[in-house]
Amino acid sequence: MIPRYSRPDMVKLWDPQTRFRIWFEIEAHAADAMAELGTIPKADAAAIWAKAGHVTFDVERIDAIERETKHDVIAFLTHLADFLGPESRFVHQGMTSSDVLDTCLAVQLSRAADMLIADVDTLLQALKKRAFEHKFTPTIGRSHGIHAEPVTFGLKLAFAYAEFDRCRNRLVRAREEIATCALSGAVGTFANIDPRVEAHVAAKMGLKVEPVSTQIIPRDRHAMFFATLGVVASCVERLAIEIRHLQRTEVLEAEEYFSPGQKGSSAMPHKRNPVLTENLTGLARLVRGMVTPALENVALWHERDISHSSVERMIGPDATITLDFALARLAGVIDKLLVYPETMQKNLDRLGGLVHSQRVLLALTQAGVSREDAYRLVQRNAMPVWRGEGAFLPLLKADPDVTAALSPETLESLFDLGYHTKHVDTIFDRVFGAA
Amino acid sequence: MIPRYSRPDMVKLWDPQTRFRIWFEIEAHAADAMAELGTIPKADAAAIWAKAGHVTFDVERIDAIERETKHDVIAFLTHLADFLGPESRFVHQGMTSSDVLDTCLAVQLSRAADMLIADVDTLLQALKKRAFEHKFTPTIGRSHGIHAEPVTFGLKLAFAYAEFDRCRNRLVRAREEIATCALSGAVGTFANIDPRVEAHVAAKMGLKVEPVSTQIIPRDRHAMFFATLGVVASCVERLAIEIRHLQRTEVLEAEEYFSPGQKGSSAMPHKRNPVLTENLTGLARLVRGMVTPALENVALWHERDISHSSVERMIGPDATITLDFALARLAGVIDKLLVYPETMQKNLDRLGGLVHSQRVLLALTQAGVSREDAYRLVQRNAMPVWRGEGAFLPLLKADPDVTAALSPETLESLFDLGYHTKHVDTIFDRVFGAA
Amino acid sequence: MIPRYSRPDMVKLWDPQTRFRIWFEIEAHAADAMAELGTIPKADAAAIWAKAGHVTFDVERIDAIERETKHDVIAFLTHLADFLGPESRFVHQGMTSSDVLDTCLAVQLSRAADMLIADVDTLLQALKKRAFEHKFTPTIGRSHGIHAEPVTFGLKLAFAYAEFDRCRNRLVRAREEIATCALSGAVGTFANIDPRVEAHVAAKMGLKVEPVSTQIIPRDRHAMFFATLGVVASCVERLAIEIRHLQRTEVLEAEEYFSPGQKGSSAMPHKRNPVLTENLTGLARLVRGMVTPALENVALWHERDISHSSVERMIGPDATITLDFALARLAGVIDKLLVYPETMQKNLDRLGGLVHSQRVLLALTQAGVSREDAYRLVQRNAMPVWRGEGAFLPLLKADPDVTAALSPETLESLFDLGYHTKHVDTIFDRVFGAA
Amino acid sequence: MIPRYSRPDMVKLWDPQTRFRIWFEIEAHAADAMAELGTIPKADAAAIWAKAGHVTFDVERIDAIERETKHDVIAFLTHLADFLGPESRFVHQGMTSSDVLDTCLAVQLSRAADMLIADVDTLLQALKKRAFEHKFTPTIGRSHGIHAEPVTFGLKLAFAYAEFDRCRNRLVRAREEIATCALSGAVGTFANIDPRVEAHVAAKMGLKVEPVSTQIIPRDRHAMFFATLGVVASCVERLAIEIRHLQRTEVLEAEEYFSPGQKGSSAMPHKRNPVLTENLTGLARLVRGMVTPALENVALWHERDISHSSVERMIGPDATITLDFALARLAGVIDKLLVYPETMQKNLDRLGGLVHSQRVLLALTQAGVSREDAYRLVQRNAMPVWRGEGAFLPLLKADPDVTAALSPETLESLFDLGYHTKHVDTIFDRVFGAA
Repeated sequence: MIPRYSRPDMVKLWDPQTRFRIWFEIEAHAADAMAELGTIPKADAAAIWAKAGHVTFDVERIDAIERETKHDVIAFLTHLADFLGPESRFVHQGMTSSDVLDTCLAVQLSRAADMLIADVDTLLQALKKRAFEHKFTPTIGRSHGIHAEPVTFGLKLAFAYAEFDRCRNRLVRAREEIATCALSGAVGTFANIDPRVEAHVAAKMGLKVEPVSTQIIPRDRHAMFFATLGVVASCVERLAIEIRHLQRTEVLEAEEYFSPGQKGSSAMPHKRNPVLTENLTGLARLVRGMVTPALENVALWHERDISHSSVERMIGPDATITLDFALARLAGVIDKLLVYPETMQKNLDRLGGLVHSQRVLLALTQAGVSREDAYRLVQRNAMPVWRGEGAFLPLLKADPDVTAALSPETLESLFDLGYHTKHVDTIFDRVFGAA
Repeated sequence: MIPRYSRPDMVKLWDPQTRFRIWFEIEAHAADAMAELGTIPKADAAAIWAKAGHVTFDVERIDAIERETKHDVIAFLTHLADFLGPESRFVHQGMTSSDVLDTCLAVQLSRAADMLIADVDTLLQALKKRAFEHKFTPTIGRSHGIHAEPVTFGLKLAFAYAEFDRCRNRLVRAREEIATCALSGAVGTFANIDPRVEAHVAAKMGLKVEPVSTQIIPRDRHAMFFATLGVVASCVERLAIEIRHLQRTEVLEAEEYFSPGQKGSSAMPHKRNPVLTENLTGLARLVRGMVTPALENVALWHERDISHSSVERMIGPDATITLDFALARLAGVIDKLLVYPETMQKNLDRLGGLVHSQRVLLALTQAGVSREDAYRLVQRNAMPVWRGEGAFLPLLKADPDVTAALSPETLESLFDLGYHTKHVDTIFDRVFGAA
Repeated sequence: MIPRYSRPDMVKLWDPQTRFRIWFEIEAHAADAMAELGTIPKADAAAIWAKAGHVTFDVERIDAIERETKHDVIAFLTHLADFLGPESRFVHQGMTSSDVLDTCLAVQLSRAADMLIADVDTLLQALKKRAFEHKFTPTIGRSHGIHAEPVTFGLKLAFAYAEFDRCRNRLVRAREEIATCALSGAVGTFANIDPRVEAHVAAKMGLKVEPVSTQIIPRDRHAMFFATLGVVASCVERLAIEIRHLQRTEVLEAEEYFSPGQKGSSAMPHKRNPVLTENLTGLARLVRGMVTPALENVALWHERDISHSSVERMIGPDATITLDFALARLAGVIDKLLVYPETMQKNLDRLGGLVHSQRVLLALTQAGVSREDAYRLVQRNAMPVWRGEGAFLPLLKADPDVTAALSPETLESLFDLGYHTKHVDTIFDRVFGAA
Repeated sequence: MIPRYSRPDMVKLWDPQTRFRIWFEIEAHAADAMAELGTIPKADAAAIWAKAGHVTFDVERIDAIERETKHDVIAFLTHLADFLGPESRFVHQGMTSSDVLDTCLAVQLSRAADMLIADVDTLLQALKKRAFEHKFTPTIGRSHGIHAEPVTFGLKLAFAYAEFDRCRNRLVRAREEIATCALSGAVGTFANIDPRVEAHVAAKMGLKVEPVSTQIIPRDRHAMFFATLGVVASCVERLAIEIRHLQRTEVLEAEEYFSPGQKGSSAMPHKRNPVLTENLTGLARLVRGMVTPALENVALWHERDISHSSVERMIGPDATITLDFALARLAGVIDKLLVYPETMQKNLDRLGGLVHSQRVLLALTQAGVSREDAYRLVQRNAMPVWRGEGAFLPLLKADPDVTAALSPETLESLFDLGYHTKHVDTIFDRVFGAA
């Protein structure tokens, strides 16, 4: 985690105090359930909440105990005993450390998912607003980086909206994957703990019961979670790269907002660089790099080995903090994006009408020219334009093989921009829902 | 794709003939829709099916044309024109190559998903059968590779069943992600093709309409698909490694079926090696290695660049063929797995009763000993057993601090195996549904 | 491996006939050494070469035997016995399958490395030729996709040359990593085979002796090999992306050669797409995706497990064939690249002189203006130019705070292109060696 | 970076104070060179060292300036100006931020490499010490997790020694890759800075001159660096997994040192878990996960884009800190590893002599039995032993087909352990050098 690429709420979710608070709640709810079942005295269970329900844990003291015992949950329980006194012996009864650790991680990851979903919602709002603003702003569509046919800038944003709407659904599913509770004891058999304790804690912590655990919650759930973050990060990258392309000097159809006082380059004062989206490109690589370690975490030995732990200590916070930051940054970029419709029009006109070549091709075939011949006719008039030796329409009008099939008036009518935008409403309805 | 790690149905899905057949169907269905809309003559659309609906395409001829034109769809259309004659000019009207390619890929990947789901179903059946067979076969549960507490072999298999049941759900979702149709033209605007053509083809090919495409179907869908395969592969690896562990000479609680005539080692005739599950471990690495390229495919430039294509030509077949093979192999391994309950019992007895240490710990605390003291009492009696210097129960009985809290009879009662299996029914009900 | 992305020599290296030939040579050389040591009769060792030294192995028959024995080396030896008769019992004496398999893989990978090094040499030649051709062709340097300051096109190519020169060195080292021979028996102890046999075979096969093997050659060697291919592939991607950028419609400073008869788009006849370099971008992703499986292959269990085998069966051929193809394709692209110096000059002039902003900044500070003030002066004159509201030089001349420090003549002298190319010779000398 | 998995020296290398110190040195050395060349006054260059050569930079103040300017190097220079006064205008003359940033990163990474090399040296020492200690401690060699033939525990450690000796060489090369200096200005042309300044700074900072840079040092160097760390991490994983296997309850041939006061499990007081090596397994996954982002960093746009920056801010510290910690931890594990030769012998005896099966096979063939027949003879006597139905030697003696070829005395002689250790000296000489 790097402070400059993080936001406070997500950071707080992963700080020790939050973790110890969740551990405490798991232990205290479990004690409640045990008291209800008669395993431990009700008064003692109540005393746990009363004596420690509102304390701020001493993180440094817990760390100090852990350095001695080399065991984090025991360190926490030892510290908790300072507050509880004799009732402390009823805490953690029949439980194993992983019951606490894995259920806590489930709480953290599902809260993280909630924040990421909220981030996506903010981004979707920005995309929708700008999409409607530019619903009919013409711009050139590009395949292979080469001008193809006209689109609108709103369509580009609608495409991104649909993409992040899918990401939202994926995050919702990823949250479901991860939101389970296991309090099943040392090897998952409930030998020393009643399954009803698990059910109670699950309900209280907003989780589902894990149907079968070993010592731990199975790691395919976490793998699916982080793989999903990798997909979302890749979508962030796609949109970031789109903007970087649009801001290139030769294109300059859009620009990241450039705040007063900002310096683009220490050496070249004229520069206005797409540094935010370049940054997002790098952050996407980072999140994506955490997918494979998460996948490698699945194949633990027998009822568990602890090799997943160090991985999760790092990628748990890092992946969620980085993606949270990236989504929020991207929402800001979209919201404040400087859009230059005049340049879009200028670029659109750049290829001397070549962007209408397909329509001419179709008109030729509909006029009875074979597809192969039509292709050749169009291509031989297109190549000079490509080389900067004239505009497409005059060349076509001067080609007798073309005019044998299409009149000059028909040819002119094929160069109408509205032809390309006639289904924008249809697409917007599909993406945003009918008005 | 490696022949030895492939099965014929999945291989066939990816062969050129299948691909050209799907291309043909997309083109012919599109022509039907255009005829219905009056764009092309109905008789000509019908002629497409009549003249080429049942032909076997000449793959080598198409390849030869492609070598000249350097364009696969044009090569196919040229070949198709040989069959169709003049009607060929109504084929592919207003469409772009990617309309055909991407919709075809969607068909192939969704069929691949169907096969993978069927594979998982076969595996689930085998797991369920063996799980019930060994529902109460006692075996030691291990954490960190170290004996922990008893479980049953059926529980191990129930755990795997639940894992692959989740994988089944993931594959169903991955199929949904991928099963969309785009016939939206050069940059996705439907400039030259009516959206109703897309809707018709989608319905005929068993797909949904892609709400907004550029030239192509967005690659976040494919990324999610391959990421899901990576998760499933990691689950294959987990179960494979479990079996490899069980077959170790020192453990030998289960073994892959060893066919007559099979040779374990050219040099050491006594060997019976878990080669199938070792192989599965490697195959899992391969499938997992294809996740990142799929994620890197998302960020294409503008309305498309074609960098994703070479990646998909390889990982499309390779990931699905390899995973199909791996799932089928794993199902076979489970179905025929040799299980040795006697060795399981022998191993269970190995630690001189130490596996009951937690239960003793709990009994001590319930008898009023503080948690810290109880831990120390148990540990000081456990360590000699660990060093092979005696059995746990006699040592406990000989420790006056222990017997001050627990009578010899009570101590003996704590060493009962049934204590650990009392909730197996509960867990089986959760996993397989109540009887 | 995909036929369209492969070249025959590298494909041949990985075909079964080549593999069986190498296996045979290893066995026959080993027999020679054993005969020399007196372990087996000299006449029988000689007979091995005489009887089978020139046979073409029957791949299908070997496959058939393997299907029965499930062991590839035994299948080969059984087939070999058909040729050898009784002498066959002296083949493979004291050896284990991996002695043959791993040494063979070492031979294949080192030959593959030789081909890759030759590929890089061809690429280097092309880069050098084009670099000198455009040593002083001015073009704009871009950071963040934004015009920065002038460079030359030759410098861009020199940069690529230096990059692939480093790749060449890396491949040489990777070859060293991999080129070892192990004939050390079932667990690497030489219990049944004399170390001198290994030394003899190593020398004959052009390898070094592996100092200590287990059953196998350690897989960190292979990991390093494939990691190196991943780095080289990433360099291919970098140069490919550079060219894709240069071919963008708005930039169009260079283009892939477009052969007569080639079709850019089935729908848009005007298109000339950078499909080769887009393809290279995808191929780079594929090779890179094979790095992690190779890294995961390192941690085999004890003296070996066979999980690496399926991985290597795929990535051995796939990574080398794909990279071989990619390097050769890239060399061709560079060799035939269409370069447009006029467009480069036009783009260079595009920013109204802003590319000289740093030089103005420096001149101001050298004239005594504080760095902070100079930055502000330059930036306030640059921003209108950026917005298309004038050229840089006239604006500077009209700014009294600027002219207070720098005379109009001085300002003009700061806009000289030669200023930026004065060290091109130095850099070329560093990269290509002094003339 | 996670505090619990880090060591102070490597952490310090990456803290802001160290970074600013390196930045200062680069700037001050550059000023010296410029003064020597007459570009700036010598007295002013000297004043830079005099006024700021020993200051502790105010990290918070620099951060505050950066928040305003959004530019880290400008923030540093602004802060530096507070110390320098008017001389500050001679700092950073003709340089670009990346000159400072990239050269600083080169210094940090090469210092990191030095520390990692020292870590490997410590590990090598531990491995060598323990290898000689157990040079002739017999233990079973295992392939596929199945007993194969005898080795010695010293051989296992010698194998690891050779592996990490290779890693040492790789780190030395990775250091060479990364240790270059670029002070070449905005796009690498030295337009505003003399190449001799670069040469001076390079020499002073212990680096080589980068032959050709753009705005930045090419990222294939960094990719190779991090890829190398990924290989080293995979070697750490291999040895860690070896130890985890040896510590399994059923094997227990070696154990991590277990300190007094340590708790293996909060619930099961008897447990002694290989938590250090499990942890190393996870750390290896983390370091390996950083390879792909580094590879993706290579293909920057044109003369640079800044997408690599966020990646390196994270993986620069994280990969080196994690690997440094892992190597040190592994050295400690090896140094203090508890080794149990008695258990090794017990396990060796476990298979009833089957580990000698290959030797019997060889003896049979040397006695004239065909290879195929010998294999069958050995296998039919081995299978009952495998099933626990007897010991190998008696069964062989009772098989008339065996005794027809080999006398009982000869058979007995084939069961000698010394046979397997006769070349241990040879191997040790190869690995550690002749005595």
